[in-house]
Amino acid sequence: MSTSPHDTASTPLWDRIHQSFLRQGMMQQLGARLDRVAPGEVDIALPYSERVTQQQGGFHGGAMGALADIAGGYAALTVAPKGMEVTTVEYKINFLAAFQGGELRATGKVLRAGKRLIVTSVLVQHVSTTGKSSDCAVMQQTVMPVPKTYD
Amino acid sequence: MSTSPHDTASTPLWDRIHQSFLRQGMMQQLGARLDRVAPGEVDIALPYSERVTQQQGGFHGGAMGALADIAGGYAALTVAPKGMEVTTVEYKINFLAAFQGGELRATGKVLRAGKRLIVTSVLVQHVSTTGKSSDCAVMQQTVMPVPKTYD
Amino acid sequence: MSTSPHDTASTPLWDRIHQSFLRQGMMQQLGARLDRVAPGEVDIALPYSERVTQQQGGFHGGAMGALADIAGGYAALTVAPKGMEVTTVEYKINFLAAFQGGELRATGKVLRAGKRLIVTSVLVQHVSTTGKSSDCAVMQQTVMPVPKTYD
Amino acid sequence: MSTSPHDTASTPLWDRIHQSFLRQGMMQQLGARLDRVAPGEVDIALPYSERVTQQQGGFHGGAMGALADIAGGYAALTVAPKGMEVTTVEYKINFLAAFQGGELRATGKVLRAGKRLIVTSVLVQHVSTTGKSSDCAVMQQTVMPVPKTYD
Repeated sequence: MSTSPHDTASTPLWDRIHQSFLRQGMMQQLGARLDRVAPGEVDIALPYSERVTQQQGGFHGGAMGALADIAGGYAALTVAPKGMEVTTVEYKINFLAAFQGGELRATGKVLRAGKRLIVTSVLVQHVSTTGKSSDCAVMQQTVMPVPKTYD
Repeated sequence: MSTSPHDTASTPLWDRIHQSFLRQGMMQQLGARLDRVAPGEVDIALPYSERVTQQQGGFHGGAMGALADIAGGYAALTVAPKGMEVTTVEYKINFLAAFQGGELRATGKVLRAGKRLIVTSVLVQHVSTTGKSSDCAVMQQTVMPVPKTYD
Repeated sequence: MSTSPHDTASTPLWDRIHQSFLRQGMMQQLGARLDRVAPGEVDIALPYSERVTQQQGGFHGGAMGALADIAGGYAALTVAPKGMEVTTVEYKINFLAAFQGGELRATGKVLRAGKRLIVTSVLVQHVSTTGKSSDCAVMQQTVMPVPKTYD
Repeated sequence: MSTSPHDTASTPLWDRIHQSFLRQGMMQQLGARLDRVAPGEVDIALPYSERVTQQQGGFHGGAMGALADIAGGYAALTVAPKGMEVTTVEYKINFLAAFQGGELRATGKVLRAGKRLIVTSVLVQHVSTTGKSSDCAVMQQTVMPVPKTYD
């Protein structure tokens, strides 16, 4: 990712999210990529590979769920108090359509930033290899600020 | 898994679920294991590894979600019409506690087996290396029978 | 409601939704009002009264849930096949803030209109007596077309 | 309700829940009845009437949702710190079947009683006039202790 615009435009907010993102063994394992960080909004992408398929060859619902979960969670982290991490309390996801190939892009947005709880909404879109974008899943999520246990 | 009791007790129902399970690239990737298949009930386990962690070192919510999703989905598949597969319409998961090490065990149960929709409930428990079992997450899920697209 | 602009602008779509709405004993009981009907979108309002309060005097979560449920359901009905009714398969609601007085306005929108299932999203806003609008709750909902059992 | 066994067996826990229940304008309006209170468990019933119907004559999903919401909320209140009230953060409900006549009975149970959040599960059953009991809806709910604003 050394040539990505995000690296050249590194900000304290980007660094905060990126540092946490790189610690997620599962996201590295699945091949996810942090794409965009703004106050209250985060984009994460997941390219298609054998690592993220279900039994019929499409993207695994679990991969879409995990991707949406972290996009919402990191959107929440951008508004959480300094020095805190976040943990997911619960989420609900509706799958709108199944896709193969291309990549998934999840956009998490903060709907309400409370002191005790943060509510987010996430849209997962599929982008085909020809660039066609289609809605894929929607999530509503509740996130809680928690103490950070790493440096 | 050649020495597991499930292989020796292979049944048409076990074979139906197992055949579908082995086709899930993501579950193989994360290291999940099909443990038990009964009419309307399926257990799937996921041992702790770096492949399933979040940023604080615990099991990733996305891994718990994916595990619960397939446990519920396969419970539904045991009651779906012959020759059909299933797809997840939506699910909602609450995380009850965070765990590290040991393994997760998800038990999916069918609450209602309709012709058009199947509703399931899933309990995810953590089993520590000393055998202590604790509730970890609960899911409610809606699943839909769909045509099978593989042989 | 004889002087409302909706009556004067009565359309087949408005009539379809309105006819079903008037049959809902519970909505009449709580004092809800059908405000706007468009393809894939419906607004329903609920003025504050003692009929819709919880123990601390604010709008009851159950009233917000019921209001959002029918706003989403009627948005789905606008895109359901002619002569069909709809039934709610499931929904999930997050409460963002508590309010007293004024009225609630729920806007249901269709996210995906499938043959077997319709997915909607609903935003509930509170409008104070001075006209100030605030987000109050968000819902994701799954709706199913079913045969109509009345004329 | 002066002849109900609950009144004769009044306990501090029953009184705590009952006092809050009577303050719910909406539950009085719909005709709901507090039936049983135990640590971590509460039953609430809702007899069929025109006040709780949808357009096809069955129990309104919104009535089932409101009933389940308060059954879970009051189960949570039984384990909340003394002097506190509770508020619903979010819930998700699946409708399993539609019913007319008889009454609904919702049983809320605490799954996890945390300091910051309480997670509950609710089963709504329909009891026909002949006493036949059938599953009707299931809910997962997140509840938060909040300061009580009444005496």
